[in-house]
Amino acid sequence: MGLYELIMKRRSVRNFESQEIPEDVIEKLVDAANNAPSGGNIQPLSIILVREPERRAELADIVGGQPWVKNAPLSMIFCIDFYRLKKWAATFDTQFKGEKALSHFLIAYADIMCSAQNVVLLAGELGLGSVYIGTIQSSMDRGREYFEIPKYVVPMMVLSLGYPRSVPKNVPKLERAAVVHREKYRVDTDAEIAQTFEKKYGSLEDTRENYFERTFVEVVEADKQQRESWADSVKEEMKKLEIKSNAEFLFKLRYPTDQMVKMNDGLFRSLKNAGFDFS
Amino acid sequence: MGLYELIMKRRSVRNFESQEIPEDVIEKLVDAANNAPSGGNIQPLSIILVREPERRAELADIVGGQPWVKNAPLSMIFCIDFYRLKKWAATFDTQFKGEKALSHFLIAYADIMCSAQNVVLLAGELGLGSVYIGTIQSSMDRGREYFEIPKYVVPMMVLSLGYPRSVPKNVPKLERAAVVHREKYRVDTDAEIAQTFEKKYGSLEDTRENYFERTFVEVVEADKQQRESWADSVKEEMKKLEIKSNAEFLFKLRYPTDQMVKMNDGLFRSLKNAGFDFS
Repeated sequence: MGLYELIMKRRSVRNFESQEIPEDVIEKLVDAANNAPSGGNIQPLSIILVREPERRAELADIVGGQPWVKNAPLSMIFCIDFYRLKKWAATFDTQFKGEKALSHFLIAYADIMCSAQNVVLLAGELGLGSVYIGTIQSSMDRGREYFEIPKYVVPMMVLSLGYPRSVPKNVPKLERAAVVHREKYRVDTDAEIAQTFEKKYGSLEDTRENYFERTFVEVVEADKQQRESWADSVKEEMKKLEIKSNAEFLFKLRYPTDQMVKMNDGLFRSLKNAGFDFS
Repeated sequence: MGLYELIMKRRSVRNFESQEIPEDVIEKLVDAANNAPSGGNIQPLSIILVREPERRAELADIVGGQPWVKNAPLSMIFCIDFYRLKKWAATFDTQFKGEKALSHFLIAYADIMCSAQNVVLLAGELGLGSVYIGTIQSSMDRGREYFEIPKYVVPMMVLSLGYPRSVPKNVPKLERAAVVHREKYRVDTDAEIAQTFEKKYGSLEDTRENYFERTFVEVVEADKQQRESWADSVKEEMKKLEIKSNAEFLFKLRYPTDQMVKMNDGLFRSLKNAGFDFS
């Protein structure tokens, strides 16, 4: 399978075999991360490998109780690491203030995501499945405390990996034409935009399980791995909130828009606790 | 060549043949971007393809006069696109406020970098070279105006691509052991940290051209493509600033640390101009 096919067939995997990932495979994954492009080749990256069952369980709890994080034989915590750079600079009587420079922060975050995506693709080629867990950002303080992460280092992304027990069906994507612009940005009409998304998500009137497979696959995957049914509670919430469209499902139920905005304070506070302050 | 070798051998390419990239190759690259993982599968991605010589020249100027952006037959501008999501939500009488939610912004940025890195690797497999240009973030207003980018859309990364005329030597990387931690963060001593970086960068006493090849390859690559010598002016600045260490070279000359912090205001203002405000 060529890389194009690998990229087109890749799906986030949340159902893993218990089989360990061999040490030499893990080393290759880390090499792939370490050799990703890095702005100015500064390499503000640290990766914490989490393999011990007790630590996996704690990490799963920290990121919001996601069973696949506990079940995955390996999770990699991708951190922006300015601690190392600051210490190095200080040793040579100079200063690095990336934790106060939004530009350094944004490029560092791009760097660690290039690293993480290198791992995703190489893992795929090596027969492994993986899933990104972004919610570590909402529990940054707890994550930093548990994994003994010092000041000027922030965990920004978790990647959980293992040999797939099952792979979800393809989830829908926007058509290529919707995301591509030529020479300048093309502003689509509101009707065109609405049509593009409705084509992606399909009908809400479908059976709920089929609908979740396309729009909230976590619910379906979680229910394979736990006793209580997440799908049932989502169905109830859909009824209560009178969800009548894909857009409402996404922005009233899954990512309630005012609640998302309210998370800013916590996120800025966590960044400040880690020494990051761009104000 | 397997993916591991591709990843380990990849170097940012800044010297391109004038040869066009065929349309079917570009479509594959866009597919690879569009099929990258996306948090909640929200796909807040727009890509502007820049191929016309006049527009390439303007983009090169916008990002700070980098000759390879003008010379590359294709540049892809990766944008966080909340315009499309807001319009869709509004059509169905709901709201999406990603432009006010730092969490949505950070996950969206992770998404577009996964997309971009998919393109980097697939491009490599298809015989293309590429280089990331992050400085579009410092010229966001000008970029948005020239490429007619609407509110709630911000250009966050440029990737310039083409068939390589030459590929730089391997740049040094930190040792794998320096970036990897097991089960928890390992705080290295200051001496260990300093040693790690000195091993990476080597001696400052080396000939300047050899030194730049390892530490500031842009200077070397630019001088192949332009009349004036950037290397000479960097050498003069090194003398003037009395640069005596790798750390000083990086944080006094290349990324002067106080100037980096001063860029915050402009960046926040540009984000605000695009409708993004997390305060």
